Amino acid sequence: METKKVLLTEDEMPRQWYNILADIKMNPPLGPDGNPVTPDQLAPVFPMNLIEQEVSSDRWIDIPEEVLKVLSIWRPSPLIRAYSLEKALDTPAKIYYKYEGVSPPGSHKPNTAVPQAYYNKEFGIEKLTTETGAGQWGSALAFACSQFGLECKIFMVRISFDQKPYRKSLMAAWGGNCIPSPSNETKAGRDILEKDPDTPGSLGIAISEAVEAAVSDESGKTRYSLGSVLNHVMLHQTIIGLEAKKQLEKINEYPDVIIGCAGGGSNFAGIAFPFVHDKINGKDIDILPVEPTACPTMTRAPFAYDHGDTAGYTPLLPMHSLGHTFVPAPIHAGGLRYHGMAPTVSQLITEGIIEPKAVTQLAAYKAGVLCARTEGVVAAPETNHALACVIDEANKAKEEGKEKVILFNWSGHGLIDLTAYDKYLAGELTDFVLSEEEQAESTKILENYPKPEMVKST
Amino acid sequence: METKKVLLTEDEMPRQWYNILADIKMNPPLGPDGNPVTPDQLAPVFPMNLIEQEVSSDRWIDIPEEVLKVLSIWRPSPLIRAYSLEKALDTPAKIYYKYEGVSPPGSHKPNTAVPQAYYNKEFGIEKLTTETGAGQWGSALAFACSQFGLECKIFMVRISFDQKPYRKSLMAAWGGNCIPSPSNETKAGRDILEKDPDTPGSLGIAISEAVEAAVSDESGKTRYSLGSVLNHVMLHQTIIGLEAKKQLEKINEYPDVIIGCAGGGSNFAGIAFPFVHDKINGKDIDILPVEPTACPTMTRAPFAYDHGDTAGYTPLLPMHSLGHTFVPAPIHAGGLRYHGMAPTVSQLITEGIIEPKAVTQLAAYKAGVLCARTEGVVAAPETNHALACVIDEANKAKEEGKEKVILFNWSGHGLIDLTAYDKYLAGELTDFVLSEEEQAESTKILENYPKPEMVKST
Repeated sequence: METKKVLLTEDEMPRQWYNILADIKMNPPLGPDGNPVTPDQLAPVFPMNLIEQEVSSDRWIDIPEEVLKVLSIWRPSPLIRAYSLEKALDTPAKIYYKYEGVSPPGSHKPNTAVPQAYYNKEFGIEKLTTETGAGQWGSALAFACSQFGLECKIFMVRISFDQKPYRKSLMAAWGGNCIPSPSNETKAGRDILEKDPDTPGSLGIAISEAVEAAVSDESGKTRYSLGSVLNHVMLHQTIIGLEAKKQLEKINEYPDVIIGCAGGGSNFAGIAFPFVHDKINGKDIDILPVEPTACPTMTRAPFAYDHGDTAGYTPLLPMHSLGHTFVPAPIHAGGLRYHGMAPTVSQLITEGIIEPKAVTQLAAYKAGVLCARTEGVVAAPETNHALACVIDEANKAKEEGKEKVILFNWSGHGLIDLTAYDKYLAGELTDFVLSEEEQAESTKILENYPKPEMVKST
Repeated sequence: METKKVLLTEDEMPRQWYNILADIKMNPPLGPDGNPVTPDQLAPVFPMNLIEQEVSSDRWIDIPEEVLKVLSIWRPSPLIRAYSLEKALDTPAKIYYKYEGVSPPGSHKPNTAVPQAYYNKEFGIEKLTTETGAGQWGSALAFACSQFGLECKIFMVRISFDQKPYRKSLMAAWGGNCIPSPSNETKAGRDILEKDPDTPGSLGIAISEAVEAAVSDESGKTRYSLGSVLNHVMLHQTIIGLEAKKQLEKINEYPDVIIGCAGGGSNFAGIAFPFVHDKINGKDIDILPVEPTACPTMTRAPFAYDHGDTAGYTPLLPMHSLGHTFVPAPIHAGGLRYHGMAPTVSQLITEGIIEPKAVTQLAAYKAGVLCARTEGVVAAPETNHALACVIDEANKAKEEGKEKVILFNWSGHGLIDLTAYDKYLAGELTDFVLSEEEQAESTKILENYPKPEMVKST
């Protein structure tokens, strides 16, 4: 029998994360004064041990034993050969995926939620605040906080809060307290509600609220936690790609193409960065982050300095951004509805090391249904975007007659996000493509900020 | 670091199922004429290759290669040491669980859905009908049918259909057609609707509809598929216990206590039967199937001949039964709301080889929340019943000061069944205990049938 899964034992789990800052040069984040942010300025928001990680340029960073212990609930995740999909596509390509849906919350998000909870606990923090869009990140942090005995408060984008009641239930089962954003609990929330009481909310708004809730707690025992974008988040996710590398080595394979969907960038970074290291050192790999046409930060937005949140509480980050007040169309992949892109991922795009792709919602769900009926797993809406790109690449390999090895990250299962499958199957799902006019309008705000330099790493 | 999971490779997957009929004696199923049912009488309902399995007394039955191939999407499932739960309970017991939530539909159900779809396909069948309560079985069969290119029609108990819309979406993603039962598509459904248009439905009714839909298809290309109760279903599930045995051997452990929740019996049988074989051959093990106090077939109902469905289409099976017209209280563990119990499991109870336990809904959810916050996994409502029993046994081990090894089956995750966690956490969940009067009323119907003999196997 063909072997479908390549497994690793817990002993084979990577003991260090890979830090891409050792291999690329970056524009620094800027504070309100226009100067590079100092660690001290971030101290009210994050614990110092995580800030040190955020700015570290050590190539390898040890994964604490206590973190490995919790990760071992579901890690190492399997590497799976998509035989049935290959057959359905009649492609000479070999398709492998890391399946991150095996985690308790069902996505890759706990890979960073767990170390973030751990480092906060170590630093003496008792409560974490965060935001969540579709709910994958909020669930992951609630899970991680329950493992380390921390309180967890989650501001969930209101439209998702209303549409996805199970997400709130899941967070509650782990002891998390999830409320809809904008809320009356923060100034940022109240300001928005005053202007627009019926706002559906956005990730940018929810981040503002969560940051405010953390820094305004006078006990000093509360910090904020972010599920994507920042360097330390990308760092923690590299365990995915490091495992994949070991797994592929076991079967003497090396990828020609690497694919991951990207909202804030952490899922993509997780699978891709350890291979980006190889590419910088001469390997020939196509590395493709995939985004929705409704929120095309990587394929269309300028590389600019912008805030990570709507209220402008965060430092200015060098990133591909549609402007921090941009509210993306209501596509079902909530995790891909973010106005910016991780600075590290953005930097790799500016240097041409990775090549972003954008796919429509319909193409994504078409791919998702095909994969559900071949590989058997019903994917998260975000993953469907990667699947559409995988199918494109497999078809390209067929046209070219090449036995390419395609590796992608199956970021999560879709069991709590099934509504859109119904709509797709009923022919009621629509496509959204950001118009030139909308983009021009939303990116105007970027003119207020300094421009990042076109730094060259290699 | 302590190893949390014991894994097997695909090569180590069992190649044969264990058939308990080789080790126990049973009363035969009876047909409408009061005589033992012949294979020919079952032929309109099931394909002959599965009927042969149903009546086989071979101890070991080969698992077809094509079945192993699909099972390998998620199998072998991990055996996990519940360190965090042990710590929270401060128990000397070592607690291990097989985690069946890793399957695409999220439960143990596809272990039999896949071979059933395979054997039907082999026999030339093109469409399967079935019933589902909470939706785990319907999802599993839709998944399995999509793997073998079969059509799938699912009659879902109306109250669950309305309360759990995601289940229908999941089946649809795999191409399954799920409709609420009772429906107007069958005589059984129409008869019930005429008497009670607002009926919430029941598993017994849905089985009647699914059987009727299969046997009334004049093409002869449709058969019925049952997700529990029957011998061949128990057989297919033994892969769980067989894997667990190998996994425990790897770490030089053997269980003192085995626990599984039981609705129709297949989840329990899956983990327990390979060890029942050992117990019959002299091993000292406590083997505990767990049911809800709302539907106490094993702990209170008589061992009797009864129909498997409400309309009385199925043969009379020798089982612990509350009567085939019994409608259990609306507990959230839909998979445990069945009036009967698998004949094999029932037989073991009559012989005292296994010792059934009953737990209340509140005890089950209390256990579920504790396990979510220690082990990290949010369990299915059904699994919560097993968890309550595991905690009782771990506490008993503590009282006795014994380092017992407890093995249980974590039948599935609760990600599509979260409503009851909300209610539990809000203090709105209630207990149901079947009253003596209700039981007397519901079991009256059993007086119409012959009595099974008290057969002794050992």
